Amino acid sequence: MNAASPEVLSALRACVGEDRVLVDAGALEHYGRDWTRVHPAAPLAVVLPGSVGEVQALVRLALERQLALVPSGGRTGLSGGAVACQGEVVVALDRINQITDFNPVDRTVRCGAGVVTAQLQAFAQERELFYPVDFASSGSSQIGGNIATNAGGIKVIRHGMTRDWVAGLKLVTGTGELLDLNRGLVKNNAGYDLRQLVVGAEGTLGIIVEATMRLARPPQDLAVLVLAVADMAAVMRVLEAYQSAMDLQAFEFFSELALQKVVAHQGLQRPFDTVAPFYALLEVERGSAADMEQAMALFEHCAEQGWVLDGVVSQSVAQAQALWRLREDISETISRWTPYKNDISTTIARVPDFLAEIEAVVNEAYPDFEIVWFGHIGDGNVHLNVLKPDALPMAEFQQRCSEVSRWVFEIVQRYEGSISAEHGVGLLKKAYLHYSRSPLEIQIMRQIKQVFDPAGIMNPGKIFDA
Amino acid sequence: MNAASPEVLSALRACVGEDRVLVDAGALEHYGRDWTRVHPAAPLAVVLPGSVGEVQALVRLALERQLALVPSGGRTGLSGGAVACQGEVVVALDRINQITDFNPVDRTVRCGAGVVTAQLQAFAQERELFYPVDFASSGSSQIGGNIATNAGGIKVIRHGMTRDWVAGLKLVTGTGELLDLNRGLVKNNAGYDLRQLVVGAEGTLGIIVEATMRLARPPQDLAVLVLAVADMAAVMRVLEAYQSAMDLQAFEFFSELALQKVVAHQGLQRPFDTVAPFYALLEVERGSAADMEQAMALFEHCAEQGWVLDGVVSQSVAQAQALWRLREDISETISRWTPYKNDISTTIARVPDFLAEIEAVVNEAYPDFEIVWFGHIGDGNVHLNVLKPDALPMAEFQQRCSEVSRWVFEIVQRYEGSISAEHGVGLLKKAYLHYSRSPLEIQIMRQIKQVFDPAGIMNPGKIFDA
Repeated sequence: MNAASPEVLSALRACVGEDRVLVDAGALEHYGRDWTRVHPAAPLAVVLPGSVGEVQALVRLALERQLALVPSGGRTGLSGGAVACQGEVVVALDRINQITDFNPVDRTVRCGAGVVTAQLQAFAQERELFYPVDFASSGSSQIGGNIATNAGGIKVIRHGMTRDWVAGLKLVTGTGELLDLNRGLVKNNAGYDLRQLVVGAEGTLGIIVEATMRLARPPQDLAVLVLAVADMAAVMRVLEAYQSAMDLQAFEFFSELALQKVVAHQGLQRPFDTVAPFYALLEVERGSAADMEQAMALFEHCAEQGWVLDGVVSQSVAQAQALWRLREDISETISRWTPYKNDISTTIARVPDFLAEIEAVVNEAYPDFEIVWFGHIGDGNVHLNVLKPDALPMAEFQQRCSEVSRWVFEIVQRYEGSISAEHGVGLLKKAYLHYSRSPLEIQIMRQIKQVFDPAGIMNPGKIFDA
Repeated sequence: MNAASPEVLSALRACVGEDRVLVDAGALEHYGRDWTRVHPAAPLAVVLPGSVGEVQALVRLALERQLALVPSGGRTGLSGGAVACQGEVVVALDRINQITDFNPVDRTVRCGAGVVTAQLQAFAQERELFYPVDFASSGSSQIGGNIATNAGGIKVIRHGMTRDWVAGLKLVTGTGELLDLNRGLVKNNAGYDLRQLVVGAEGTLGIIVEATMRLARPPQDLAVLVLAVADMAAVMRVLEAYQSAMDLQAFEFFSELALQKVVAHQGLQRPFDTVAPFYALLEVERGSAADMEQAMALFEHCAEQGWVLDGVVSQSVAQAQALWRLREDISETISRWTPYKNDISTTIARVPDFLAEIEAVVNEAYPDFEIVWFGHIGDGNVHLNVLKPDALPMAEFQQRCSEVSRWVFEIVQRYEGSISAEHGVGLLKKAYLHYSRSPLEIQIMRQIKQVFDPAGIMNPGKIFDA
């Protein structure tokens, strides 16, 4: 890694102020990586602009000096999209974190890119509204990063992805110009919806500096059901039965091994004594007595069919929260085994066959490894986690996993699925992009990047190589 | 207009078959225009491909012979997006109209681009599902055209635009290649979502040949409320009161003049004796007795505040349909006055001030004209219709209207609104695009078109000039 030259540092300081350029080892390490730990952080410098104008000045400087920029939010990503490992300048949006222009009629609010997800959630709650995109990292992820990665999470089945809540956004392009896209309108069919292109582009088209986010009416009193399910096909039957009768707020699943791990390490109770291959967690709005009667009638039906072997319904908010922990704590619980994660999807109907094929490959390839399955099965999205045996050196584990990834992605391709359902591509999945996107699609993406970023300074090397 | 050369006709016939190339005056007229009547139809020929392969062959031929292509659906558009007035070859998708691969678990279905909206609605209904995008032209508009224009309509407040129901689409690009975008996945964060770019691009990026459409659980028993409202600001208060308490299926408005016209010409009854400046039409799901009690309590509240002067609630399906006609029949009713239409939007909260400013301009400019207001006020989208006085010649009427359009669009620009909320840009709004989109945005759109259509053969001259 080259150290930043005095000239470059001085020019960066002229853009954002003396104290807003960081080059100490701690800052470079902190701002140069995300939740992945595969690529060592190696940025040239970290800058903390305080305004849109400062971001534009930084981009113009980067053009002059041929500096690569990495836009940086909460860095909670799981694919290396915000990693700076090649002497880039990290542009951290932390200081552009104001919430302004709350509009109760449109139910929108303007957020600086650096607004933390939980900050927006709390802002909404104080106004008896609701920001429904929620996931484990909501305490540190930022709105700009959520948009750049089109973050998903545990409420997608009911409320969609981050994309669905972006009413407008401002982007500083690779030429330093400012695009103000859609401006909070519900309806705007005046030309291409460029906003949609920026959502999920992982910072490769420019730096998101501001967004107008939509808020929702808060859900009423929620009930959580955890069901023991006979097999994967039955999980899908239960989903279909509930979904045809009522709006589900969530439909998650996890395997017996996931449950065992989370119970053993988080001090939680099993929901019931019955042991089953899989468990489904459903959340429904307890709108009226009739709604809960319907939820219970569906449970009876699923039990009669032999799909469901046991179940429990939350009777209080505290019990609902305790049941949610069985699912939500899995990721943290298994992190001690530094799992190799795949975040894959197919259409919902094909999930049972898809999982059976992947399980066969994985069990053959890793007879000695523990495999933990969980995920957003109501969206066709499963997380495949291979746990590292304690005795196995990390490098050898990574090596064996990446070999098997190819076989897994061949199955994903055969099922016309996605190699990254919600985590994005970043650096970690770049080599596998062609399993989900055709050569023509990848070529078009490259050309679109050139339109927004002709000098190739915006998060270069992420998603695809130039 | 030049007639097609024998060589070109012979080459077109080689692509799609002898009987599938039409050049008679009736066909050229029928397939060369949409619901606008501003530009005379003047296509070179009309072709009716029966497969994706035939569409690709046509595009390759167009590249060789430098033919411009106009993709053509039901041609119910209101902005001239599907008009062929410059010797183009119309590629009508009528024959690619199969519905296949119904997937009850994902609630998706694969539609040829030529599937008529009502055909999809009926298909869904037969399976106890629901295709929620609905508008006046559903009996002849086609799915491919709906996607190309991101069609909206009367259920947007609850169910969104066509964009929200496209789970995947296939596009033949301007180079004759086939893109298969998103393939029905709920979650797919593997690179740019090119599907979103195609939705609303009005055929300028290629020809949509197939789409995977999502279906919904059907709404339960619906109740319709029509309310007499004191003024425009009160309309917004009523919207806010209802929307903060319940999910609205629709929230439409129309003016007293609109009501008078529709009652006089459609043989309908006024909903009540009270005369008010505006009327709001609300649709709510009659989920339970509690829901209707809430709807009535909100009505009482709005009446106490002086916002609502009178109201009626449907007591039967027949009465609900009769109330809907007061709103839905407006467009057809006023068509006898060949209205000059503007389809504009701003954020919802700004609608009262926005309408007041536009009304002042329009009333000053057209003291002798009747102005009919109606639209999807719950989305911030209003239709401004200027009726032609019987005595005024058409050319003079068009001339006076287009002068005033400039003043209207200056207000739209000041309110950061859209010059085309749902009808698209096509030919009719092209000259006004810069009131809603910046020069940089328009430049980016042009460059993106070049990526998909380097030879410029796909619906050239629509939205913007090359």
